Amino acid sequence: MKTDLDHFMQEKELDAILVTGPGQHNPPMVYMTGGCQLTNADLIKKRAEQAVLFHYPMERDEAAKSGLKLKNLAEYNFNALLNQVNGNYLQAVVMRYKMMLEEIGVKSGKVALYGKTELGSNFEVFSALQRELSEITLLGEMNNSSMMLARMTKDDHEIERIRKMGKITTQVVSLTADYISSFTAKDNILYKPNGDPLTIGDVKGRINHWLAELGAENPEGTIFAIGRDSGVPHSSGRSDDLIRLGQTIVFDIFPCESGGGYFYDFTRTWCLGYAPDDVLELYHTVLSAYNTVSTQLEVGKPFNHYQDLVCDIFASHGHPTIKDDPTTQSGYVHSLGHGIGLNVHERPWSGISSDDKDCLLPGTVFTLEPGLYYPAKGMGVRLENSLWVQPDGKIEILADYPMDLVLPVKNS
Amino acid sequence: MKTDLDHFMQEKELDAILVTGPGQHNPPMVYMTGGCQLTNADLIKKRAEQAVLFHYPMERDEAAKSGLKLKNLAEYNFNALLNQVNGNYLQAVVMRYKMMLEEIGVKSGKVALYGKTELGSNFEVFSALQRELSEITLLGEMNNSSMMLARMTKDDHEIERIRKMGKITTQVVSLTADYISSFTAKDNILYKPNGDPLTIGDVKGRINHWLAELGAENPEGTIFAIGRDSGVPHSSGRSDDLIRLGQTIVFDIFPCESGGGYFYDFTRTWCLGYAPDDVLELYHTVLSAYNTVSTQLEVGKPFNHYQDLVCDIFASHGHPTIKDDPTTQSGYVHSLGHGIGLNVHERPWSGISSDDKDCLLPGTVFTLEPGLYYPAKGMGVRLENSLWVQPDGKIEILADYPMDLVLPVKNS
Repeated sequence: MKTDLDHFMQEKELDAILVTGPGQHNPPMVYMTGGCQLTNADLIKKRAEQAVLFHYPMERDEAAKSGLKLKNLAEYNFNALLNQVNGNYLQAVVMRYKMMLEEIGVKSGKVALYGKTELGSNFEVFSALQRELSEITLLGEMNNSSMMLARMTKDDHEIERIRKMGKITTQVVSLTADYISSFTAKDNILYKPNGDPLTIGDVKGRINHWLAELGAENPEGTIFAIGRDSGVPHSSGRSDDLIRLGQTIVFDIFPCESGGGYFYDFTRTWCLGYAPDDVLELYHTVLSAYNTVSTQLEVGKPFNHYQDLVCDIFASHGHPTIKDDPTTQSGYVHSLGHGIGLNVHERPWSGISSDDKDCLLPGTVFTLEPGLYYPAKGMGVRLENSLWVQPDGKIEILADYPMDLVLPVKNS
Repeated sequence: MKTDLDHFMQEKELDAILVTGPGQHNPPMVYMTGGCQLTNADLIKKRAEQAVLFHYPMERDEAAKSGLKLKNLAEYNFNALLNQVNGNYLQAVVMRYKMMLEEIGVKSGKVALYGKTELGSNFEVFSALQRELSEITLLGEMNNSSMMLARMTKDDHEIERIRKMGKITTQVVSLTADYISSFTAKDNILYKPNGDPLTIGDVKGRINHWLAELGAENPEGTIFAIGRDSGVPHSSGRSDDLIRLGQTIVFDIFPCESGGGYFYDFTRTWCLGYAPDDVLELYHTVLSAYNTVSTQLEVGKPFNHYQDLVCDIFASHGHPTIKDDPTTQSGYVHSLGHGIGLNVHERPWSGISSDDKDCLLPGTVFTLEPGLYYPAKGMGVRLENSLWVQPDGKIEILADYPMDLVLPVKNS
């Protein structure tokens, strides 16, 4: 939780963090500010001190919404700095950062960089800044970053925001089911009243419409993939594909709050009208794996323990898994889940590689999403909910929705 | 244009560019791939050679939509690399990049980094990679980057995409005008049929709804700011603010294609019911400056020539400008415009600082947005269109819309 940030900074021997980039769709900045509509800004937080937000003068009102201590970047008079260094833009930016760090009292030690922003120019700026700073080491933290460790457990305020996104998500899934069921099938294909076939593009258009209506954004798009595409986990689906009966549809939806805030993540697999036997069998195997794992989840256990478990369950039914063959593209081909928050994928990880030892702790929000994929057979099944470990260790699904496979349709 | 990229790479003596990060809402990646729904990917382009897209195995179908040469990252067997370096994740990522560069045949020279992505971890990775590479210099290009120079002029395909966003934008502006005019004023405030006052939050909700309906995204939000807030250029407006008659509303809308593609940028200033004399005068000064500048625009001229011109026009009417006082927060406080494309703000810049010498060239798409701001008087006016320099040098507004100040409303 955010209140743990100083603790993790101390553990990592960080003297300060520096966050840069836009105020929205920039998880570290949104985490520190709550989310403000800023084109570009910087934030410096010394360990055990309050963060200071550096903003451009035109954006002073937006910056103020953060409730943080503010510094107006205009006070550094960039044009004067630029004149001092004969118009060398890079050098002027570096000088300004030096002044900002000095002003905050960061004089030595380690400073970690954060921000979802332009890599190229910032790589150049911070490499140049590093050459100017003899007492300060600039670094970027990898997977184990102190902010990601803080963010791995959520406080009540964050849970409310994620829960609200879960409610919006399942409302949109329900609207989507009703929408699809409202069309009439002819020769196993759904048709609109005007005689045109319904397409995946039509369905996705409605999904975006409903999400916006309910106040959410969908920056990463939606997976709505049918048939062979449903057998490739991250295939998003082709816009002009038709909606055919008896084929698996993997519907994976992961919207976020307006302005790039908290995400929800949710998947159902649907088969319209009826499910062929091989699809039914695949579905029941995935559902039973989901149920087995979800009833065994325990607070404090490493997340990847359950990845191991689900691999063994699928293998016992004769499916290839990435545990046995890391390059397999059929059977069980991904990890069991991941944390969600300001990133749609964040810690805890459930992967089995040696760096991933994340545990299910109170405050953790994570997905559980077993799946089986057979692209050559034109089918795939994935079922996913987002869960929260409550302070007392109980584990709760943040938004309920039926797991049903078959959606009824009208036949002409 | 993209066909100029090799030329600019040669001019900058770049041997390759490396783009990293997600496939959407990542301008350099979208520019090179056309836009694919990829969680994370890398792209390496040697000068005068085709780009190669490195993708994760689950995203092979999405990667294929780019039409580029593909490499599946699974072929580098990350888990084996991780074992080789005793689980040191950073080191394994660095080794994989070394293998990728070798495979593409990048053995020496300069490689420029690109991508809107996590700064921290990438700063660490590319700093570590640099230490391992003796013959290659990794660098980040600043404002003058070869890709930004290529992107500064758009080809016909890009113009069509921006024009389509312009059409959606003005449709939404028209819907917004009709929506606001449909309410009834009482005591100078607009009320909904249920008796509640209309709020800026209500209006913004409708704007997002219509944008989604028309297939656009709104990742940076909308400015809909009234009264004092309209006097602060980047104030986005307060959700619970009421809509009052006779106050300036700055409505600045800048949506993009779904998935983080091309933007449009557009501003009108409205006054509901009537405009007080001081607002009328401010509006006419801004409109006349807009008209003077727009009729003087000439292909080949530096953009900041017109910034200079508009400062002089406003100064001649007695308004403070940033030309005379760079720190002023009233009068004319920003630059005349900016390029638009995959970033809502990109080159050409119209600022007067020494690094900004961008010219209006055939293919340039840019905004023209003079404005005057008096926060203490509770008013601000900005008028903005997006323009394109045609191949023959003619300058065209990409989406027409009336400049009218006063929106009629019904009185109870």
